[in-house]
Amino acid sequence: MPISSLSLDGGQLLAQIQSLGHIGADAAVGGRTRIALTDAEKAGRDLVMQWMRELQLDVRIDRIGNIFGILPSAYESDKQRPLMIGSHIDTVRNAGALDGCYGVLAGLAVVRAYRAAGVQPRRAIVIGAFTNEEGVRYQPDMMGSLVYAGGLAVDEALSTIGTDSTRLGDELARIGYAGDMEPGAILPHEYLELHIEQGPVLEAEGQLIGVVENLQGISWQKVTVLGTANHAGTTPTRLRHDAGYVASATVTFLREKVVSAAPDTTLATVGSLRLEPDVINVIPRKATFTVDLRDPDEDRLRTAEKRLADFLVEIAEREGVKIETERLVRFEPVVFNANLANEIEASARRFGFTYRRMTSGAGHDAQMIARIAPAAMIFVPSRGGISHNPREHTDDVQLVQGAQVLLDVVQRRLAKA
Amino acid sequence: MPISSLSLDGGQLLAQIQSLGHIGADAAVGGRTRIALTDAEKAGRDLVMQWMRELQLDVRIDRIGNIFGILPSAYESDKQRPLMIGSHIDTVRNAGALDGCYGVLAGLAVVRAYRAAGVQPRRAIVIGAFTNEEGVRYQPDMMGSLVYAGGLAVDEALSTIGTDSTRLGDELARIGYAGDMEPGAILPHEYLELHIEQGPVLEAEGQLIGVVENLQGISWQKVTVLGTANHAGTTPTRLRHDAGYVASATVTFLREKVVSAAPDTTLATVGSLRLEPDVINVIPRKATFTVDLRDPDEDRLRTAEKRLADFLVEIAEREGVKIETERLVRFEPVVFNANLANEIEASARRFGFTYRRMTSGAGHDAQMIARIAPAAMIFVPSRGGISHNPREHTDDVQLVQGAQVLLDVVQRRLAKA
Repeated sequence: MPISSLSLDGGQLLAQIQSLGHIGADAAVGGRTRIALTDAEKAGRDLVMQWMRELQLDVRIDRIGNIFGILPSAYESDKQRPLMIGSHIDTVRNAGALDGCYGVLAGLAVVRAYRAAGVQPRRAIVIGAFTNEEGVRYQPDMMGSLVYAGGLAVDEALSTIGTDSTRLGDELARIGYAGDMEPGAILPHEYLELHIEQGPVLEAEGQLIGVVENLQGISWQKVTVLGTANHAGTTPTRLRHDAGYVASATVTFLREKVVSAAPDTTLATVGSLRLEPDVINVIPRKATFTVDLRDPDEDRLRTAEKRLADFLVEIAEREGVKIETERLVRFEPVVFNANLANEIEASARRFGFTYRRMTSGAGHDAQMIARIAPAAMIFVPSRGGISHNPREHTDDVQLVQGAQVLLDVVQRRLAKA
Repeated sequence: MPISSLSLDGGQLLAQIQSLGHIGADAAVGGRTRIALTDAEKAGRDLVMQWMRELQLDVRIDRIGNIFGILPSAYESDKQRPLMIGSHIDTVRNAGALDGCYGVLAGLAVVRAYRAAGVQPRRAIVIGAFTNEEGVRYQPDMMGSLVYAGGLAVDEALSTIGTDSTRLGDELARIGYAGDMEPGAILPHEYLELHIEQGPVLEAEGQLIGVVENLQGISWQKVTVLGTANHAGTTPTRLRHDAGYVASATVTFLREKVVSAAPDTTLATVGSLRLEPDVINVIPRKATFTVDLRDPDEDRLRTAEKRLADFLVEIAEREGVKIETERLVRFEPVVFNANLANEIEASARRFGFTYRRMTSGAGHDAQMIARIAPAAMIFVPSRGGISHNPREHTDDVQLVQGAQVLLDVVQRRLAKA
């Protein structure tokens, strides 16, 4: 079988990435902000809907606001499940133009290749844009795909109250994207997601294509340490109950004892840490910090959680403080479909693109859809590993080459339909 | 020589502490707020001035706003230097009623004992209330006594810009306390300061009187760690430049390697620590934290500073971050006058009060005046070691007993005049 019989219009893909990137632009600081279900995100949705209609796709919106553009199969009475390509178009604050958008627009580029050649696929192709992947305003993140996969009841999701006290369902209705399709109604035969890596590995190793064979498990906790505020100059060390020291000792323990036990797979990050009263000469009364633990192996992730929990018990006793933990997010690791991963690797090899098998460190809609369909992901490099930032960048040629691999994999999977 | 021939009016002292404590009262949360040179602090000054005038003291105000009430000596043409009793009446936000105020009002109680007995001292007695001891709005703290001792030029102090962008000299003039006396013009023969301990030692050991023979050196630094923000899920540990980890490792090092090297004397506190961007799944780009190091021995304090500096160089290299340090405050340890300390101890013994020799952990005006005159301090217990807090408390009987020791020491020193 030859390399892609269909031809991908790279220029059009890049132009659409740029056009969508202008919506919600942050004039002063660069970047753009299209937080889910805001006016800016509605404008992004409207543009993607317009592009779907220009491709004469059958557009459906479900009750959680996920958008689907369907390219019908060659068979009029087709009852086969479609191949789905998806990602998201909502962003964090002051974001890059690629995260999520690249995957949705590359899906449109695949469909465009079919339309341009006048070819109808042997299985319907659905391009999905999932609601609220970023979880900036409404928790949890990856919400649209989670609901779609049956992991969260739609009514519960619609009742979510945001950081600005709005109700998700109200905002969804307000922007006109409260659809009537039941989430999950279009069950995919297979699911593919093309995404920038958002990490430094591909660039650091000089590889073009990431064949994503699994996705790390994620464990988020909030830890609150309750100590005693006291004067920094008059309180002997043995009489201190220093919430800040306990927090810092925990951060140090995570790096030096938990990560070091499995340095190639376990990741631990304390991104947020706050002290009260946060005054130079007062021993902190209270420390609040977050712990982000990740590992592609569930047993190792549980071991990391257990070691942290044991340490917190031990140091609370030793320092005379009270420690409370709250679980914020917990996703088990996801192993993607081996056939799809092999297909991606084979495609990269045929193109002569450098590639590596890898684990996704970030969460993606693919991990939710993997609950209901075989799924896999394709990564392209992120310069400097930077994402969620206006400096997020992937070279144009790499963006086009990633989409070529996607188109090739789609054609090969449909050839087997 | 008998115990105090003069008699201290404890009830009047306690009543004045209570009256002054009502000024600037924080109705909602308890406590009071009389930050230096605010309207509330002006009201406190006015009340103390009124009480000084009721005692027919000769009241002087210097250019930095220090207030002095002078009880003249028995000799009309006295050229001897006076004995000074001092402290401060400004407070932190939401403070107790005792910190500083107790020392000033106990000084007035000493003078009142002389007035009540119709006795004139053999040496003038000066009661001083120093400006801006707390340093909440204007840095540095202990400013009035520092200027008085010649450690800071008065014009420089007047030009200080506050956290609210006001100029100290303007605020001093606004509240009507920009005097014309040159700071330092009344050079004390000896200086005594009575203060609550603001620490837990006296209470923990069941002692009444702290004979303060020295005061810790204080070293304050601000440390800024500049790392690289990156995605918590996609950045391998070996590629991280985690400013938050570096800050936490430093806090841990201070406790586990610096303090532990001299656990009975060296104190290290990180009271303030802030991360940027402070987001759960982003490796901190920047960490800013303060280090408060104290030791009564200058060599040991320097050793602690050196070990911290060496650690910062080492971890910056290891983690690939940039670290900047800024010195905020540096005071060498102060050794108080041995004769005065012996006099305090002898007085406590004669009263039959329990006592212990001790080091002051907090900074006090006495440490500044010790630059220009023999000085010492008397401490009474602070319940739970709590200060800078509405829960600051010393039993009434302890407050009166502390003032009795002060009066006794004053009489004995003047007997030697």
